Amino acid sequence: MEFDKLVHQPTRLQIFAYLYRHGRSPFTELVTALDVTEGNLSSHLQTMESERAVVVEKEFVDRKPQTTYELTDEGNELFEDHVETLETLIDGLDG
Amino acid sequence: MEFDKLVHQPTRLQIFAYLYRHGRSPFTELVTALDVTEGNLSSHLQTMESERAVVVEKEFVDRKPQTTYELTDEGNELFEDHVETLETLIDGLDG
Repeated sequence: MEFDKLVHQPTRLQIFAYLYRHGRSPFTELVTALDVTEGNLSSHLQTMESERAVVVEKEFVDRKPQTTYELTDEGNELFEDHVETLETLIDGLDG
Repeated sequence: MEFDKLVHQPTRLQIFAYLYRHGRSPFTELVTALDVTEGNLSSHLQTMESERAVVVEKEFVDRKPQTTYELTDEGNELFEDHVETLETLIDGLDG
Protein backbone atom coordinates (compact mmCIF):
# COMPACT_ATOMS: atom_id res chain seq x y z
CA MET A 1 0.00 0.00 0.00
CA GLU A 2 1.44 3.34 -1.09
CA PHE A 3 0.83 6.49 0.98
CA ASP A 4 1.67 9.63 -0.97
CA LYS A 5 3.81 11.64 1.44
CA LEU A 6 2.63 14.94 -0.08
CA VAL A 7 -0.95 14.14 0.89
CA HIS A 8 -0.44 11.94 3.97
CA GLN A 9 1.36 14.49 6.13
CA PRO A 10 -1.23 15.43 8.82
CA THR A 11 -1.51 19.18 8.18
CA ARG A 12 -1.43 18.78 4.42
CA LEU A 13 -4.06 16.02 4.58
CA GLN A 14 -6.38 18.56 6.25
CA ILE A 15 -5.50 21.28 3.73
CA PHE A 16 -6.30 18.89 0.84
CA ALA A 17 -9.57 17.88 2.53
CA TYR A 18 -10.62 21.48 3.19
CA LEU A 19 -9.88 22.69 -0.36
CA TYR A 20 -11.43 19.55 -1.82
CA ARG A 21 -14.65 20.26 0.05
CA HIS A 22 -14.79 24.06 -0.09
CA GLY A 23 -13.01 24.81 -3.35
CA ARG A 24 -11.05 28.03 -3.73
CA SER A 25 -10.43 29.45 -0.25
CA PRO A 26 -8.62 32.46 1.23
CA PHE A 27 -5.41 31.87 3.19
CA THR A 28 -6.95 33.53 6.26
CA GLU A 29 -9.91 31.13 6.16
CA LEU A 30 -7.55 28.14 6.05
CA VAL A 31 -5.59 29.43 9.06
CA THR A 32 -8.75 29.67 11.13
CA ALA A 33 -10.43 26.49 9.90
CA LEU A 34 -7.36 24.29 10.36
CA ASP A 35 -6.12 25.96 13.55
CA VAL A 36 -2.52 26.15 12.35
CA THR A 37 0.04 28.97 12.45
CA GLU A 38 0.41 31.16 9.36
CA GLY A 39 4.06 30.11 9.02
CA ASN A 40 3.22 26.41 9.19
CA LEU A 41 0.38 26.78 6.68
CA SER A 42 2.52 28.83 4.30
CA SER A 43 5.31 26.27 4.22
CA HIS A 44 2.90 23.39 3.53
CA LEU A 45 1.11 25.36 0.80
CA GLN A 46 4.49 26.17 -0.79
CA THR A 47 5.32 22.45 -0.81
CA MET A 48 1.93 21.70 -2.39
CA GLU A 49 2.38 24.49 -4.94
CA SER A 50 5.84 23.26 -5.94
CA GLU A 51 4.24 19.85 -6.61
CA ARG A 52 1.52 21.55 -8.70
CA ALA A 53 -1.20 20.32 -6.32
CA VAL A 54 -2.53 23.83 -5.67
CA VAL A 55 -2.60 27.16 -7.48
CA VAL A 56 -2.40 30.49 -5.66
CA GLU A 57 -4.16 33.69 -6.71
CA LYS A 58 -3.52 37.15 -5.37
CA GLU A 59 -6.17 39.81 -5.92
CA PHE A 60 -7.68 42.89 -4.27
CA VAL A 61 -11.03 42.47 -2.55
CA ASP A 62 -12.56 45.75 -1.28
CA ARG A 63 -9.13 47.32 -1.91
CA LYS A 64 -7.45 44.80 0.38
CA PRO A 65 -4.95 42.20 -0.94
CA GLN A 66 -6.29 38.64 -0.66
CA THR A 67 -4.48 35.36 -1.36
CA THR A 68 -6.59 32.34 -2.27
CA TYR A 69 -5.67 28.72 -2.89
CA GLU A 70 -7.36 26.08 -5.01
CA LEU A 71 -6.59 22.43 -5.73
CA THR A 72 -5.46 21.76 -9.28
CA ASP A 73 -6.91 18.81 -11.20
CA GLU A 74 -3.70 16.99 -10.27
CA GLY A 75 -4.18 17.91 -6.60
CA ASN A 76 -7.79 16.66 -6.70
CA GLU A 77 -6.67 13.40 -8.23
CA LEU A 78 -3.83 12.88 -5.74
CA PHE A 79 -6.24 13.44 -2.89
CA GLU A 80 -8.97 11.18 -4.29
CA ASP A 81 -6.42 8.38 -4.79
CA HIS A 82 -5.22 8.85 -1.22
CA VAL A 83 -8.75 8.72 0.21
CA GLU A 84 -9.28 5.51 -1.76
CA THR A 85 -6.12 4.02 -0.20
CA LEU A 86 -7.30 4.99 3.29
CA GLU A 87 -10.77 3.54 2.60
CA THR A 88 -9.20 0.28 1.38
CA LEU A 89 -7.18 0.05 4.59
CA ILE A 90 -10.25 0.76 6.75
CA ASP A 91 -12.53 -1.60 4.80
CA GLY A 92 -9.91 -4.33 5.13
CA LEU A 93 -10.16 -4.21 8.91
CA ASP A 94 -13.40 -6.12 8.99
CA GLY A 95 -11.70 -9.12 7.31
CA MET B 1 -8.00 17.34 14.04
CA GLU B 2 -5.26 15.39 15.80
CA PHE B 3 -3.30 12.69 13.95
CA ASP B 4 -1.35 10.47 16.34
CA LYS B 5 2.12 10.32 14.83
CA LEU B 6 2.74 6.83 16.25
CA VAL B 7 -0.20 5.47 14.23
CA HIS B 8 -0.23 7.83 11.23
CA GLN B 9 3.24 7.02 9.91
CA PRO B 10 2.57 5.02 6.71
CA THR B 11 4.38 1.76 7.59
CA ARG B 12 3.16 1.77 11.18
CA LEU B 13 -0.42 2.47 10.02
CA GLN B 14 -0.24 -0.77 8.00
CA ILE B 15 1.31 -2.68 10.93
CA PHE B 16 -1.51 -1.49 13.23
CA ALA B 17 -4.11 -2.44 10.60
CA TYR B 18 -2.61 -5.89 10.01
CA LEU B 19 -2.35 -6.76 13.71
CA TYR B 20 -5.78 -5.28 14.38
CA ARG B 21 -7.28 -7.55 11.76
CA HIS B 22 -5.22 -10.71 12.22
CA GLY B 23 -4.34 -10.58 15.90
CA ARG B 24 -1.08 -12.04 17.11
CA SER B 25 1.21 -12.52 14.09
CA PRO B 26 4.76 -13.74 13.48
CA PHE B 27 7.41 -11.21 12.45
CA THR B 28 8.08 -13.15 9.24
CA GLU B 29 4.40 -12.97 8.28
CA LEU B 30 4.41 -9.20 8.78
CA VAL B 31 7.51 -8.80 6.58
CA THR B 32 5.83 -10.65 3.72
CA ALA B 33 2.35 -9.19 4.13
CA LEU B 34 3.51 -5.57 4.36
CA ASP B 35 6.33 -5.91 1.82
CA VAL B 36 8.85 -4.06 3.99
CA THR B 37 12.47 -4.84 4.87
CA GLU B 38 13.17 -6.67 8.15
CA GLY B 39 15.24 -3.74 9.40
CA ASN B 40 12.49 -1.22 8.64
CA LEU B 41 9.84 -3.41 10.27
CA SER B 42 11.98 -4.04 13.35
CA SER B 43 12.60 -0.36 13.97
CA HIS B 44 8.89 0.51 13.67
CA LEU B 45 7.91 -2.39 15.97
CA GLN B 46 10.50 -1.21 18.51
CA THR B 47 8.95 2.26 18.41
CA MET B 48 5.49 0.75 18.89
CA GLU B 49 6.75 -1.47 21.72
CA SER B 50 8.38 1.43 23.54
CA GLU B 51 4.98 3.20 23.40
CA ARG B 52 3.30 0.05 24.78
CA ALA B 53 1.19 -0.33 21.62
CA VAL B 54 2.42 -3.89 20.98
CA VAL B 55 3.81 -6.77 22.99
CA VAL B 56 6.41 -9.15 21.61
CA GLU B 57 6.65 -12.85 22.43
CA LYS B 58 9.53 -15.16 21.66
CA GLU B 59 8.93 -18.91 21.67
CA PHE B 60 10.04 -22.12 19.97
CA VAL B 61 7.73 -23.57 17.33
CA ASP B 62 8.84 -26.98 16.00
CA ARG B 63 12.20 -26.31 17.72
CA LYS B 64 12.63 -23.10 15.77
CA PRO B 65 12.64 -19.66 17.48
CA GLN B 66 9.62 -17.55 16.51
CA THR B 67 8.87 -13.91 17.38
CA THR B 68 5.26 -12.77 17.37
CA TYR B 69 3.66 -9.39 17.90
CA GLU B 70 0.23 -8.45 19.18
CA LEU B 71 -1.51 -5.11 19.75
CA THR B 72 -2.04 -4.27 23.41
CA ASP B 73 -5.41 -2.89 24.54
CA GLU B 74 -3.77 0.52 24.38
CA GLY B 75 -2.57 -0.17 20.82
CA ASN B 76 -6.06 -1.27 19.78
CA GLU B 77 -7.55 1.87 21.27
CA LEU B 78 -4.99 4.19 19.64
CA PHE B 79 -5.68 2.58 16.29
CA GLU B 80 -9.50 2.68 16.64
CA ASP B 81 -9.33 6.37 17.58
CA HIS B 82 -7.14 7.03 14.55
CA VAL B 83 -9.50 5.21 12.19
CA GLU B 84 -12.33 7.30 13.61
CA THR B 85 -10.36 10.50 12.87
CA LEU B 86 -9.71 9.35 9.30
CA GLU B 87 -13.39 8.42 8.85
CA THR B 88 -14.45 11.85 10.15
CA LEU B 89 -12.15 13.51 7.63
CA ILE B 90 -13.47 11.36 4.78
CA ASP B 91 -17.12 11.74 5.78
CA GLY B 92 -16.65 15.50 5.93
CA LEU B 93 -15.71 15.62 2.26
CA ASP B 94 -19.27 15.27 1.08
CA GLY B 95 -20.23 18.51 2.85
